[in-house]
Amino acid sequence: MKTKRFFLQENELPTQWYNIQADMINKPMPLLNPATREPLKPEDLYPIFAEELCRQELDQTHRYIDIPEPVQEMYRYYRSTPLVRAYGLEKALDTPAHIYFKNESVSPVGSHKLNSAIAQAYYCKQEGVTNVTTETGAGQWGTALSYAAKVFGLEAAVYQVKISYEQKPYRRSMMQVFGAQVTPSPSMSTRAGKDILTVNPNYQGSLGTAISEAVELARMTPGCKYTLGSVMSHVSLHQTVIGLEAEKQMEMAGEYPDTVIACFGGGSNFGGIAFPFMRHKILEGKKTRFIAAEPASCPKLTKGKFEYDFGDETGYTPLLPMFTLGHKFAPANIHAGGLRYHGAGVIVSQLMKDGYMEAVDIKQLDSFKAGCLFAKAEGIIPAPESCHAIAATVNEALKCKEAGESKVILFNLSGHGLMDMSAYDQYLAGNLANYSYNG
Amino acid sequence: MKTKRFFLQENELPTQWYNIQADMINKPMPLLNPATREPLKPEDLYPIFAEELCRQELDQTHRYIDIPEPVQEMYRYYRSTPLVRAYGLEKALDTPAHIYFKNESVSPVGSHKLNSAIAQAYYCKQEGVTNVTTETGAGQWGTALSYAAKVFGLEAAVYQVKISYEQKPYRRSMMQVFGAQVTPSPSMSTRAGKDILTVNPNYQGSLGTAISEAVELARMTPGCKYTLGSVMSHVSLHQTVIGLEAEKQMEMAGEYPDTVIACFGGGSNFGGIAFPFMRHKILEGKKTRFIAAEPASCPKLTKGKFEYDFGDETGYTPLLPMFTLGHKFAPANIHAGGLRYHGAGVIVSQLMKDGYMEAVDIKQLDSFKAGCLFAKAEGIIPAPESCHAIAATVNEALKCKEAGESKVILFNLSGHGLMDMSAYDQYLAGNLANYSYNG
Repeated sequence: MKTKRFFLQENELPTQWYNIQADMINKPMPLLNPATREPLKPEDLYPIFAEELCRQELDQTHRYIDIPEPVQEMYRYYRSTPLVRAYGLEKALDTPAHIYFKNESVSPVGSHKLNSAIAQAYYCKQEGVTNVTTETGAGQWGTALSYAAKVFGLEAAVYQVKISYEQKPYRRSMMQVFGAQVTPSPSMSTRAGKDILTVNPNYQGSLGTAISEAVELARMTPGCKYTLGSVMSHVSLHQTVIGLEAEKQMEMAGEYPDTVIACFGGGSNFGGIAFPFMRHKILEGKKTRFIAAEPASCPKLTKGKFEYDFGDETGYTPLLPMFTLGHKFAPANIHAGGLRYHGAGVIVSQLMKDGYMEAVDIKQLDSFKAGCLFAKAEGIIPAPESCHAIAATVNEALKCKEAGESKVILFNLSGHGLMDMSAYDQYLAGNLANYSYNG
Repeated sequence: MKTKRFFLQENELPTQWYNIQADMINKPMPLLNPATREPLKPEDLYPIFAEELCRQELDQTHRYIDIPEPVQEMYRYYRSTPLVRAYGLEKALDTPAHIYFKNESVSPVGSHKLNSAIAQAYYCKQEGVTNVTTETGAGQWGTALSYAAKVFGLEAAVYQVKISYEQKPYRRSMMQVFGAQVTPSPSMSTRAGKDILTVNPNYQGSLGTAISEAVELARMTPGCKYTLGSVMSHVSLHQTVIGLEAEKQMEMAGEYPDTVIACFGGGSNFGGIAFPFMRHKILEGKKTRFIAAEPASCPKLTKGKFEYDFGDETGYTPLLPMFTLGHKFAPANIHAGGLRYHGAGVIVSQLMKDGYMEAVDIKQLDSFKAGCLFAKAEGIIPAPESCHAIAATVNEALKCKEAGESKVILFNLSGHGLMDMSAYDQYLAGNLANYSYNG
């Protein structure tokens, strides 16, 4: 009997997140206050984020951080997510590689984003916050935050990137079912939005712009905090539950990954699955390869520069030491809305610089081709973002076929694509473009 | 630590389906050949269905039927589905009732329908069939069959009820991603479709009509068999994996249901969760209540007659002894497309007649109200069909609150509503109608 899915028992679930910063040889360079150019202290971030999140953000000493019990309780609603041996995909590719994926699409909101949304909403509630705000691209993060806010009795206001708001109207409906207020970004409700629309009335929006709007709302509204779905180090921290579970599940499968692959937007999905395994590369010299799959049209890791840059379009955030295409970069209108971001998180940027990981860029049509292959083979229609990880996995598995090597490949299926069927529709009709990098 | 989800290990999964016909005191009355009025023999169904399915359909003697190993292998891809204690919903209702739901929405295609699709596709493949055809309402069954066909290397042609094809265009895309051909029904591709469109060019379709078209295609096409997503006894048989798992999982939870609830279209989702528990009512006199939740606008169990009727609009099928609104009944355009069917399966009809179960009817707006409450409480947006089961559960849980009783309620969450967000959109905007029975 071939085992296809590996689950953990409730008492085997992680009770701590893994903070890779504590183990990094070269720590991430400090975030800078843009006015003073002084390194940021946690207190400097208090006006925007919940205080505990600010401390986690800059924590370079504690390897493990306890997951609060109410957060663990919510995790138990959908975790562990299954680790799946992709026999169907292996067969379709006729590859000797052993392909595994961690299926985060089974989370109630359909993606890994809930792992951090629950934590962020919890800390906000603990600290007396009443309202949370955020940006969302494809809507995965916005949906997760909307539900998490509801769980902890907070009101949520979400700025959704306009192109996604239009491409994926039902994501908006999902957020509304969970009780959130959703505004397409750029909007006229903030100074940041007005400024951008004045220069370019037809601007389709970007995560960078939506972040500016949400940060501005948080700053201007008493009792309101900003939350973020990726990029920041505390978000990757929360996402390490994925890799911590996967590590135990791979053990159940009797294997250890030679290659770990994830799609890459701001880095939290990548860090989530990669960091717990990378720990053994840093500490014990394991030879595992880590591959970030980014869109060819938004290639911050493969074509960006490592430098201090803002996290948002307007320049409200601290300066972050990261691989970036520039905070004014306007990404092409690909359907993988969650990957349309100009920069990479500071931890991942440092790890990239230090050679612990590599990156590949994937064209939109190649991503959907891989996604359709995966759907037919495994029955799950992947999110356009996840299609990038699948395309990179397919490439690696085909190299194994050529070389006759049975390598073990693990990728993160960050979410399902059921809210993205219009994109598949366009792909199947041959109406999808193959944007290249226009920076 | 409160346990929220109960899973079975792979070696605890059912290896046999449960055939309630063997245990029924009053067996279902025979299906009749409409021309001769003679009781049907399995051979009479061979031109339409795979032969093994015909034998299962009329089997009144074997209590348990082995699940073929290749079907078990596919089941292991997504089963067991979790049994979830709905603490969130209990809290939202402030009820002393213990509410559990079996979460079939985690199947790769998003609903319980895959349980029978895999079995049917498997038997067809075994018997040398190359093409399968079927009807689908909301698209849950069509999606499941499209994927199952792909798994076993069959081509699939799906007739989708026109109103659903238009209300839920992305269901069509899903089927197409899995490689199926999808046609809105009634269509001009069959005599049955042409006849109906000639009389009423704007007819929005119904499951009854789509069945006629698919049956006609199967009859006219060499190597092609018809498959069905509900109503027939062999479909309920396959769905008993739900209840068989749930029984073991309830045991893990240390409880036994006082009430089992499922939405009701043709009866396979209902039978799937109910029959394994009902076995103990028949054999051991357990007092469990079984409640079928049907739409107020399509109330075959609460307002239909028990009589011989056709399963399809045109009259291609055998005559079935069942509760029916008449095979010419045109259901209102509710969003719960899977419940828009005029009749009830023969097993359920007999059990209803014999008092083993009861039925309630739920208005469309009440179903969505319950669905939104559930979404906020549990994070899962339920299918419009499943919303009917939730509404019935909410009613029962509120009765418990009034009476101060801690009853144990189990319902089947047959699928998620992520492809039905347009319906939620209309509901939230106040644009949804509350159709009543127009028969």
